[in-house]
Amino acid sequence: MDQSLWTARPKPDRVEWLERRIEFDDYASNRDFLDRLNDFCEAQGRYPDISFGRTYVNITLRPEGEEASIGEADHAFAAAIDGLL
Amino acid sequence: MDQSLWTARPKPDRVEWLERRIEFDDYASNRDFLDRLNDFCEAQGRYPDISFGRTYVNITLRPEGEEASIGEADHAFAAAIDGLL
Repeated sequence: MDQSLWTARPKPDRVEWLERRIEFDDYASNRDFLDRLNDFCEAQGRYPDISFGRTYVNITLRPEGEEASIGEADHAFAAAIDGLL
Repeated sequence: MDQSLWTARPKPDRVEWLERRIEFDDYASNRDFLDRLNDFCEAQGRYPDISFGRTYVNITLRPEGEEASIGEADHAFAAAIDGLL
């Protein structure tokens, strides 16, 4: 079979990652949140991609391991991060 | 004069930003560096764009204020960050 005739296409309803951008009024509250976020990730042993500047944080959460899409555990992890705010 | 006839073009030798990627063996040393980096940025009152995951940090340093390109002060700031490693 000639595999090049086929295009891999994800299901349209598949969620491949979760991301959230959070804005802060000042660096102090941003840093405070970052510290809590890092503590939490360390405790959970799960490390999303995080980017930040003086007054913002972006968090990108991808599925772990072999899973191709975001599931319940990922939504629970995301909700727990919301709870850190 | 029809300004649309003109294309803005930076000098080829102009450095518009500095960036560095640093890899770590484990999260503990990454976190340790991030804490020192954040303390340093706070002390300097200057906040580069930083992104990180479990074992990497990316730092992007753009010119401050009206300056269009990277100068001596920016290189000094970058070197000071190297010193935190």
